[in-house]
Amino acid sequence: MKARVLIRPKEGILDPQGKAVERALPALGFEGIDNVRVGRLVELEADDPAHLESLCEKLLANPLIEDFEIEEIEA
Amino acid sequence: MKARVLIRPKEGILDPQGKAVERALPALGFEGIDNVRVGRLVELEADDPAHLESLCEKLLANPLIEDFEIEEIEA
Repeated sequence: MKARVLIRPKEGILDPQGKAVERALPALGFEGIDNVRVGRLVELEADDPAHLESLCEKLLANPLIEDFEIEEIEA
Repeated sequence: MKARVLIRPKEGILDPQGKAVERALPALGFEGIDNVRVGRLVELEADDPAHLESLCEKLLANPLIEDFEIEEIEA
């Protein structure tokens, strides 16, 4: 199956990339955009989706500071 | 509205992060995982979603080497 992993900074954890985007917005003429959070997107093909949770914990995300979410995008 | 932007390396563009993940898998005991592509996830709140496309082109993604997709996640 094809899967998508969404990795985000945990609530309350500082997100410097998101802040950098927010600070850049006015100079580029964008208004009304808030709460920008920047994370990672991993897409992969897995024979056995049962291992994906463990893969995220061990390799893809840092569970101390990041949350992750696994979505199946194709069987 | 709340929106999610998925940013991926374009098809055919080398993805060194994805390759690094693929190479790390066997040592961690994972098998049957292929075609790993690593991109970025941006979540934000926008008053006017009409500007998001332009925001992605100008600031969030590099259109030369990345594709992006905008998803509305909450009105």
